[in-house]
Amino acid sequence: MVVNGWALDAVALDRESIVPIYRQLYERLREQILTGALPEGTRLPPERALAERLAVNRSTVVRGYRELAADGLIEQKVGSGSRVAALKAGQPERASGVPWWVTLPPWRVGQYPAVLGELAAAEHGEQIAFVQGVPPAEPSPLADLSASFARVGGNVNFVLTYGDSEGYGPLREAIAGRMRARGARIDARDVLMLTGSTQGITLVAQSLAEAGDEIIVEAPTYPGALQIFQIHGLRAIPVPVDDEGVRVDHIEAILRTRRPRFIYTMPSLHNPTGVTLSAERRERLVLLARRWGVPIVEDDPYGELAPASTAPLVAHGGDDVIYLSSFSKTIAPSLRLGWMTAPRTIYDRLLLRKQSYDMATSMYIQAGVEDYIRGPYDAHVRALREELAVRRSIANLAIAEHWPSGLRVNPRADGYYVWATVPREFRARALLAGAERNGVSFLFGEPFYAQAGGDHHIRLSLTPIPRSAIAEGIARIGSLFAS
Amino acid sequence: MVVNGWALDAVALDRESIVPIYRQLYERLREQILTGALPEGTRLPPERALAERLAVNRSTVVRGYRELAADGLIEQKVGSGSRVAALKAGQPERASGVPWWVTLPPWRVGQYPAVLGELAAAEHGEQIAFVQGVPPAEPSPLADLSASFARVGGNVNFVLTYGDSEGYGPLREAIAGRMRARGARIDARDVLMLTGSTQGITLVAQSLAEAGDEIIVEAPTYPGALQIFQIHGLRAIPVPVDDEGVRVDHIEAILRTRRPRFIYTMPSLHNPTGVTLSAERRERLVLLARRWGVPIVEDDPYGELAPASTAPLVAHGGDDVIYLSSFSKTIAPSLRLGWMTAPRTIYDRLLLRKQSYDMATSMYIQAGVEDYIRGPYDAHVRALREELAVRRSIANLAIAEHWPSGLRVNPRADGYYVWATVPREFRARALLAGAERNGVSFLFGEPFYAQAGGDHHIRLSLTPIPRSAIAEGIARIGSLFAS
Repeated sequence: MVVNGWALDAVALDRESIVPIYRQLYERLREQILTGALPEGTRLPPERALAERLAVNRSTVVRGYRELAADGLIEQKVGSGSRVAALKAGQPERASGVPWWVTLPPWRVGQYPAVLGELAAAEHGEQIAFVQGVPPAEPSPLADLSASFARVGGNVNFVLTYGDSEGYGPLREAIAGRMRARGARIDARDVLMLTGSTQGITLVAQSLAEAGDEIIVEAPTYPGALQIFQIHGLRAIPVPVDDEGVRVDHIEAILRTRRPRFIYTMPSLHNPTGVTLSAERRERLVLLARRWGVPIVEDDPYGELAPASTAPLVAHGGDDVIYLSSFSKTIAPSLRLGWMTAPRTIYDRLLLRKQSYDMATSMYIQAGVEDYIRGPYDAHVRALREELAVRRSIANLAIAEHWPSGLRVNPRADGYYVWATVPREFRARALLAGAERNGVSFLFGEPFYAQAGGDHHIRLSLTPIPRSAIAEGIARIGSLFAS
Repeated sequence: MVVNGWALDAVALDRESIVPIYRQLYERLREQILTGALPEGTRLPPERALAERLAVNRSTVVRGYRELAADGLIEQKVGSGSRVAALKAGQPERASGVPWWVTLPPWRVGQYPAVLGELAAAEHGEQIAFVQGVPPAEPSPLADLSASFARVGGNVNFVLTYGDSEGYGPLREAIAGRMRARGARIDARDVLMLTGSTQGITLVAQSLAEAGDEIIVEAPTYPGALQIFQIHGLRAIPVPVDDEGVRVDHIEAILRTRRPRFIYTMPSLHNPTGVTLSAERRERLVLLARRWGVPIVEDDPYGELAPASTAPLVAHGGDDVIYLSSFSKTIAPSLRLGWMTAPRTIYDRLLLRKQSYDMATSMYIQAGVEDYIRGPYDAHVRALREELAVRRSIANLAIAEHWPSGLRVNPRADGYYVWATVPREFRARALLAGAERNGVSFLFGEPFYAQAGGDHHIRLSLTPIPRSAIAEGIARIGSLFAS
């Protein structure tokens, strides 16, 4: 098919690819311009016409063209459309016909490449956006935190050094002490400070496994972790999560015949289901890990918000558990501060790789948080738990009032998230489109699954919006089901 | 060989390995205790005896035993030595004979595994330690920086969010503006904020190359980069650096026959030699990259401290240059804040991988630095340049006075480091041992070379010590050559 003398086939869009369509369009055209296949002066098809031929939104073509224009590869004039620009004079010829960026190593971006970026970005306009997993604005740690940073900010040793790659000693001590209070036999030397617990997931993915290796994950689970595992080519074996947490009996069945590199699990206030694994299943899981020689990666960013009696998995079996946690959910995400504990057998291996990511985690941030932890932190965590409980009650009342009975939630869920199963006749992704027109947004379920699943699930985060907007947002979602 | 009924051969130390000897000893013994090869009650050889048999320092054995004791695997009693402890009752048997940590993927730790950690750590006791590449304590940015952080610390949007993975918009704008002032055609959208420029080196190593691929590096070069390349299995082709910078003619010769994935270079105030590449070589280098289709990774943490007329490589050839820089050398390392610019062709690829390292760089840090940059930053950079010039003069005078003529330095070097060639009859590593006894320390040259080299070179960092200690430290080093 030729439009304006220009072969559309050459664009060869891959609709299964996770590279955005506008980006594919941009890249294909760019290559053809640079290699001379589309010479100077070639008129590109009008945006609307091309969009129709390619069966994509017009905005997709607009965006692709805009990127080409920004690169100086095309010129856009109102009225006369887009033409291939004159390449800058004096650009030397390439000796090799193929530009280097075309022959880069394979890029495993995963099924939802933008998911980590979306979880990070906070732009939602006027929407009631039940999207981000960030702490509520109240209770606010800001004043106390600012005071802590002011206290450490004048200290040359905190600001003008890199600091030990393992982390700041007094903070590692404080964290080990807190973990011992939760039943884990952890020493300060077992603690490795991280620039957020996401870093720990990548560390584990790169250090404990190789592309092609199998791992066990929960279904559903944290999409950021799935994205990381996919980037590294790990093959995730999903295990269902029921109302009491991950199905440990399924894990056992898998371990009888396969040897995955590790089991990735979030046992407390699980993202997205809000479930906390029972003590009985915890013990059984750790026993299995030990018996079958497969380590557990315990992701526990919400651990300090769970009931005080909940001992982490690492308390049950230290040698077989790599523990990850974070201050993002209990103080503030912008600290980019997390930690891991690891058995001595692999600590050095993890430490060296952590150094390659950023040498060491910020001493300034660590010293500030250490100061904060010695002071107002415990009171803040208590207040945060109370706030989460209040928000949960508000949500449950609103759900009872505004949601149809076919829209199922787990009454025992707690923590940041509401995970709902929508009636069979609805699809989560389509619901989201309707919700956004209604001024409310959430996440649809697919990115939470390594394989199939999630098209009948939605996740609401109860924390990023004012408390007073929760009921209204839930009512707006409920109205999508009114017929 | 058997000591106390215990087979020494089983320890099988690998002296060529870069895993520290104490660690090897610990790991071998641990495995034997856990597998039952050394049953409960077995008496381990006395530390001194074992050290002699293994021909290692006694402290090595002491440290290995101490780690075992910390794990509860042996019991140490004064007078009666060390015995294998009773394993905790109730530990289930492992179904598989081999613990999981023994069968992990290969671990490419490089030749100097501790080098990034050593560059980060600041513990040097009473030494005059010309070691770390950190900014001098004066001029101090601390008061102004604290004020900037206090201003942003109360803002929910800076502290209670993750922020965009690309970075904080106004900071990206500010950086693009500064780079345009240096001649680079850079837009805010080309800038990707990083948690330190080390992160950029790992990003490039993981995104642009695969294990086994060749790359070009300078000889000598930044040891942290070499460590990262080694971790990822990249094969570094070294190109010499002379008094005018990297030998671009050598690069050309290599490109005629090989197709490396990229050229890693630090053209301004090069670490460790202090050389700034001439404009002529810069142009030639960028032309070569373009001609042969090999991108340049320009590591430029000292760029803002170089003469104002020095345009970065990215100003010469944007499409073929990935640019890395940092605020660690111009403001403070504890910010862990750097940035990269990348051609549009690979920007998304780098962005997605950056997200896997830490989702996004701290918004709090970025907002604080953006505030600081709009205010006192330029004056601080000017003062820092003056301070570096003063320190250089002091060092040059002291070198002229105290160092023998066989100890050669490049008179045109500038910036943070003094790189000296020591006379043939001395070896840098042995000199360091003597220097430390003299109360002064520096880095020996080997870690700065991907292959052979460096045993006749030492690097002094002029910045981490008080200005007043420079001459004394240089005199102490000079005294090592007095016979």
